[in-house]
Amino acid sequence: MNDSTTREERFAHGMEVLDKVDGEAGRRVLDALADINPELGHQVVAWAFGEIYDRPGLAPRDRQLVTLGMLTALGGCEAQLDVHVNAALNVGLTPEQIVEALTHSAVYCGMPRALNATLAAKKVFAERRLLPLGG
Amino acid sequence: MNDSTTREERFAHGMEVLDKVDGEAGRRVLDALADINPELGHQVVAWAFGEIYDRPGLAPRDRQLVTLGMLTALGGCEAQLDVHVNAALNVGLTPEQIVEALTHSAVYCGMPRALNATLAAKKVFAERRLLPLGG
Amino acid sequence: MNDSTTREERFAHGMEVLDKVDGEAGRRVLDALADINPELGHQVVAWAFGEIYDRPGLAPRDRQLVTLGMLTALGGCEAQLDVHVNAALNVGLTPEQIVEALTHSAVYCGMPRALNATLAAKKVFAERRLLPLGG
Amino acid sequence: MNDSTTREERFAHGMEVLDKVDGEAGRRVLDALADINPELGHQVVAWAFGEIYDRPGLAPRDRQLVTLGMLTALGGCEAQLDVHVNAALNVGLTPEQIVEALTHSAVYCGMPRALNATLAAKKVFAERRLLPLGG
Amino acid sequence: MNDSTTREERFAHGMEVLDKVDGEAGRRVLDALADINPELGHQVVAWAFGEIYDRPGLAPRDRQLVTLGMLTALGGCEAQLDVHVNAALNVGLTPEQIVEALTHSAVYCGMPRALNATLAAKKVFAERRLLPLGG
Amino acid sequence: MNDSTTREERFAHGMEVLDKVDGEAGRRVLDALADINPELGHQVVAWAFGEIYDRPGLAPRDRQLVTLGMLTALGGCEAQLDVHVNAALNVGLTPEQIVEALTHSAVYCGMPRALNATLAAKKVFAERRLLPLGG
Repeated sequence: MNDSTTREERFAHGMEVLDKVDGEAGRRVLDALADINPELGHQVVAWAFGEIYDRPGLAPRDRQLVTLGMLTALGGCEAQLDVHVNAALNVGLTPEQIVEALTHSAVYCGMPRALNATLAAKKVFAERRLLPLGG
Repeated sequence: MNDSTTREERFAHGMEVLDKVDGEAGRRVLDALADINPELGHQVVAWAFGEIYDRPGLAPRDRQLVTLGMLTALGGCEAQLDVHVNAALNVGLTPEQIVEALTHSAVYCGMPRALNATLAAKKVFAERRLLPLGG
Repeated sequence: MNDSTTREERFAHGMEVLDKVDGEAGRRVLDALADINPELGHQVVAWAFGEIYDRPGLAPRDRQLVTLGMLTALGGCEAQLDVHVNAALNVGLTPEQIVEALTHSAVYCGMPRALNATLAAKKVFAERRLLPLGG
Repeated sequence: MNDSTTREERFAHGMEVLDKVDGEAGRRVLDALADINPELGHQVVAWAFGEIYDRPGLAPRDRQLVTLGMLTALGGCEAQLDVHVNAALNVGLTPEQIVEALTHSAVYCGMPRALNATLAAKKVFAERRLLPLGG
Repeated sequence: MNDSTTREERFAHGMEVLDKVDGEAGRRVLDALADINPELGHQVVAWAFGEIYDRPGLAPRDRQLVTLGMLTALGGCEAQLDVHVNAALNVGLTPEQIVEALTHSAVYCGMPRALNATLAAKKVFAERRLLPLGG
Repeated sequence: MNDSTTREERFAHGMEVLDKVDGEAGRRVLDALADINPELGHQVVAWAFGEIYDRPGLAPRDRQLVTLGMLTALGGCEAQLDVHVNAALNVGLTPEQIVEALTHSAVYCGMPRALNATLAAKKVFAERRLLPLGG
């Protein structure tokens, strides 16, 4: 994206990255913003995905590990955990690795944050018929 | 650690894991706790490292990616970022990957948390003579 | 409020300020507290509104800008955002200014907090038939 | 727990402590974890309750006062407040003391956190037919 | 404080409570505010101490247990932990109980917050020549 | 910025906005990032200032009111408060309005966050020889 681009091209490029990582869940966020704050939707796509996610220095699965850690620590991000547990599966993390990352989070964020994130992941795993783990 | 173990054995096992991951920085935390709360030091070692870190389901480098995300998001954890940027390097993440993880954090935690974590990493990189990156 | 006042006078004065800023939404909070913690309700009214909100050094609309920033950053304050998006409209901020403040919040709090606050605002705007913006 | 113990013994011991403090609410958390992350459930029981809660240096009611303060401050922990308002009652705090602790929290966490915690307590008090207080 | 009082009387009453709980550390906070925001100092004294701390429903030691939990969970409150570890000692909590409360906090806030609060307590204990504990 | 632009043009435009708002303090942040994460510096300039700050829907002084609220609420952002108390003065907020905004923050964030932000402002005001207020 170093050469000359228009705002529309930056958005279009971000949408390609978003679709690969977040899939339908990402599209639903944009739809929800359409009648109140389409600019915020534009920035999620063109900036967060088109510029940051697209950078080559960290693998997509690695980005989701960092993201799961952040969303768990922030708290109150159940909607975003829904999107990003899906994203984590989309880019190749296994359900077992996601669960292990959340177990690990108890050390740094404490049990309440680890439990809340685990129950957010459980909802996604149930929708994708991945439960019970190890079953 | 499923078979019968003593409290001392659990601590000794945790110290092996701690030494591999955190190195000297981990020992300094234990030293600081010795005259006020050695029990908390015991739990960091025997539980956090001996039980959680030691589990096989997530690679040590992956645990540090999650950890960097959490410490950045929590804020006010500069001392722990110092330990865990060191740990991240110890278990095989490159300085460039660590920096990229912190750039990624701006999307989820905002610029202040991303900047504070980056300056904490800068201190570690300077001590380990890794700066300038790309130099 | 520098001269001699009773606890009841302080409450009555706070109710006047609360009614102007929060309107009915403020009354509903007090109702919810009545059977468990009327003292907390008293403090919201007599202290927060009667003493702090009532001070002349910052315009009501400016107080709501600061408040929207704080509630967005804190996270987990959807109920309070409901009250204060209403309050922001009551004291003269436009829907477009509120939305722009939440877009701005993405820089400092990250996308999840900005998105959660925007969806809380969307609920209020829908109730007040203000959507779609720009429509 | 200083002598030689198995993982199973540590879990069994933790369950005794958990049952006394959290009662049924604690069991429900474990049930919810069973098909996704039983290890996290094990750690809540064997570590948090079997090791930390079980230590003699702080009375169970004092632990719940600290816990109520932490959960209120963290935000987004309504599910955990449900468990621990119940726990606080189980170990001898009165409803009035719990409410007073939450009023006190307004000084340090601000009104939104104090209000959210109070409404979480109200739900528990209603279930246990303790409302209205002072009635 | 239900009868008619002046702003000055409310401040004077709050100072009595503040002096008993926080001692000199509280006075230093007021001094620091004198040339920039004496109103905030007034509110700390007249409201937080004169109104909330002064209420009879929760013992001073219990208020400090809740406070230590909140300050640990909030993070970035080292200055306030300094004041309130002193306050906790002033109102009758033992150093061992304070340390145990901070060990307990690891369960709910995670290790970084527990460690930061413990090191803040260590500074106070050293100033008051209470270290090593158990020595 | 809707027409075709290069990455360099976006950065140059952002620098103009940054210089007006943050002044020298903004430049110092970029300098600190130069040898470790110039990309993060680029994003602060080209995205945060060039895209978000530059939008016409909210006045610069209003953006700083929101920003002061967020930084106060987040905690652990003393370095950013330094930059943005300066920025608030640069775009036309008076010292008295800034102080009043921080007094207001006590209602929503609690006393510790309000006090920490006030002391961060005091440092800036002292450097700019604005103390004592009202003097």
